[in-house]
Amino acid sequence: MSGLLAGLRIVEGSAFIAAPLGGMTLAQLGADVIRFDDIHGGLDSDRWPVTRDGRSIYWAGLNKGKRSIAVDLRKPKGRELLAALITAPGEGAGIFTTNMPARGWLAHEELAKKRADLISLNIVGDRHGGAHVDYTVNAITGFPLVTGPADHEGPVNAVAPPWDLATAYAGAMAILAAERHRRLTGEGQRILLPLQDMALAATSALGYIGEAAINDVDRQRHGNEIFGTFGRDFRTRDGRWVMICIFSDRHVDALAAAGGFRQKFAEIERHRSVDLKTDAGRWQVRAELCAVIEPWVAAHTAAEVGAALKEAGALWAPYQSFRELARDKEAVLDNPMFTVLDQPGIGRYPAAATPLQFGAVTREPPRPAPLLGQHTDEILSGILGLPAHEIARLHDQKVVGGPR
Amino acid sequence: MSGLLAGLRIVEGSAFIAAPLGGMTLAQLGADVIRFDDIHGGLDSDRWPVTRDGRSIYWAGLNKGKRSIAVDLRKPKGRELLAALITAPGEGAGIFTTNMPARGWLAHEELAKKRADLISLNIVGDRHGGAHVDYTVNAITGFPLVTGPADHEGPVNAVAPPWDLATAYAGAMAILAAERHRRLTGEGQRILLPLQDMALAATSALGYIGEAAINDVDRQRHGNEIFGTFGRDFRTRDGRWVMICIFSDRHVDALAAAGGFRQKFAEIERHRSVDLKTDAGRWQVRAELCAVIEPWVAAHTAAEVGAALKEAGALWAPYQSFRELARDKEAVLDNPMFTVLDQPGIGRYPAAATPLQFGAVTREPPRPAPLLGQHTDEILSGILGLPAHEIARLHDQKVVGGPR
Repeated sequence: MSGLLAGLRIVEGSAFIAAPLGGMTLAQLGADVIRFDDIHGGLDSDRWPVTRDGRSIYWAGLNKGKRSIAVDLRKPKGRELLAALITAPGEGAGIFTTNMPARGWLAHEELAKKRADLISLNIVGDRHGGAHVDYTVNAITGFPLVTGPADHEGPVNAVAPPWDLATAYAGAMAILAAERHRRLTGEGQRILLPLQDMALAATSALGYIGEAAINDVDRQRHGNEIFGTFGRDFRTRDGRWVMICIFSDRHVDALAAAGGFRQKFAEIERHRSVDLKTDAGRWQVRAELCAVIEPWVAAHTAAEVGAALKEAGALWAPYQSFRELARDKEAVLDNPMFTVLDQPGIGRYPAAATPLQFGAVTREPPRPAPLLGQHTDEILSGILGLPAHEIARLHDQKVVGGPR
Repeated sequence: MSGLLAGLRIVEGSAFIAAPLGGMTLAQLGADVIRFDDIHGGLDSDRWPVTRDGRSIYWAGLNKGKRSIAVDLRKPKGRELLAALITAPGEGAGIFTTNMPARGWLAHEELAKKRADLISLNIVGDRHGGAHVDYTVNAITGFPLVTGPADHEGPVNAVAPPWDLATAYAGAMAILAAERHRRLTGEGQRILLPLQDMALAATSALGYIGEAAINDVDRQRHGNEIFGTFGRDFRTRDGRWVMICIFSDRHVDALAAAGGFRQKFAEIERHRSVDLKTDAGRWQVRAELCAVIEPWVAAHTAAEVGAALKEAGALWAPYQSFRELARDKEAVLDNPMFTVLDQPGIGRYPAAATPLQFGAVTREPPRPAPLLGQHTDEILSGILGLPAHEIARLHDQKVVGGPR
């Protein structure tokens, strides 16, 4: 292992997105991440999307580069093996992350009896330990009522799960913060990260709670417009959409140059007494700006609009579908972050390495996700030091399993 | 400073969300994070939402607990001071994060001449250094075309910015990974994190690129339904909405108990030959499940529905607005993560500390965001060791400024 985090070992009892993605993030930086699952599969082993044979593309995406051990979680012997694995000796070992209920044998206090400097990250739904998923915490944050078409009634859910993503990366960060503390003081600890608190803290950071409390207003639904500056989707002559934004002075000039709007923009400024180089000015006259931009985009193809915006250095992007993305040369096929991976049971498709480029190490290409229990034997032998006949007996007794 | 990251110092030249939020994340864990801005304010100094006086609630939310130094970035002397600050000696110092163009005097190579073990995190738009924001990378990922009402034509933008959030926390993690490497080897490095690659790597992890490439299908727009299992919004008698989901066996039973659906669920299973305890089974008969749940929710108030779902242990949540959230006892007012902060120039409102609870340290309440240049003098004196008359001269020459 040549990555930046070589020497770290994380044992993970996880399902769905936040915990597995956090672990994968560390695995892609070179940590040895071992995911354990029940011998019959985890909650997300068959999660959609799946191949036509029912193999989970979802699972494969979130567990790349990990090792997998499959154990019967109901059998005392299975639990004993996992507790030994979690608390195995080694300077960079003794790190455990889970979003399973961290009670009984999985409780930090219980595991810490075997290794006092254990670090546990317990990802939970809310601060009381209640169940939540991205969709339910999202409802509470307030975002679904301001997402979607301006004239739409009712909530619009997020498809890209913001709170799972935040929890995954913040959790991975927390592991490194705790490992630093342990390195400096010798002290382990339990870290509690509630998905709901993650969402609420981010909602607070983004100013939504402050705005509601201070101005005593509810943010309105503005469709695809970017609140407080300028940005919106526009439709091209050939029925495509482009997102066009202004975040700085430079973007005003670039957009004006791309569409030949300089004079019209100046007229809007004069007529409405606003400065398009300010957020407030752009927001105030956004309808007038759209009235200038819309006919230009509608009169040209996406290729023509894109070429003009790109040439001028405007802030913009084309909308595309996932299938178009999977074939996008610039974003995927020619992007050195992606490698065509041969994922056992699924097939060959482009998969991403870490988006982080560290100067001190070469970025490793993505490695396939393991089959369930693919590394059961090498982990029992290599980390727990069990002899071959003992491992065979555990298989016979159906205490451990895999690969399947 | 008593936080987990006490002893770390990060100097940040940033604007908008990803870079400031990453820095704030580390500040809320106890690091000394110094944000520098141009003496006239940064790109986001007046970013909306703002108070009625035009004070940025946005800026206050993303810079809590940092110190601020204001410097004329165009003056050579101003740049010299900042380069000295970024590369100041100290074991935990010499860490720089920016999403400004890291060229010239801000380039890692240039700064590393003054401190060889410098760590720089450069957040950029795309891997070529081009400009992007959450809205433009989101268009490219494919998510806007599957978000929003099933019958809607055209893209639906995210309001909660998933890629900024991911970049913020992954960037904070990267800083700690690089600091670990420096502690172990003495070596600094530049870290490059393109916002677009962050979004594409997460889209890959979530299986969307794999699904498109392997199954050669485009994910359809499913409105508020959760793809591949069961979950949707429902409207109550009093015109509120609730999100109800099923992610596990337990949630099936709980939902059935809450609404008295046991027999109807069994009939659906028999009639359609599906198993509601599988993701695929629930997804296949989702219309039938909705036909059972919908009239029950529509016949009761939100309070009644919520009480029944809560009592039964179902996976659900009420939708609410930001103003309702700001007054929500459970989520905000009684949540120990929140403190009513007195933010100079803005007022008193609930603001969140870190969502992470570390066993080894007490969570610190959130601290206000600084005024622009509030700590200019103490930083010039305390870190750069400048005498008072020199600092006064820098103010007179308008090389430094603040507070304002």
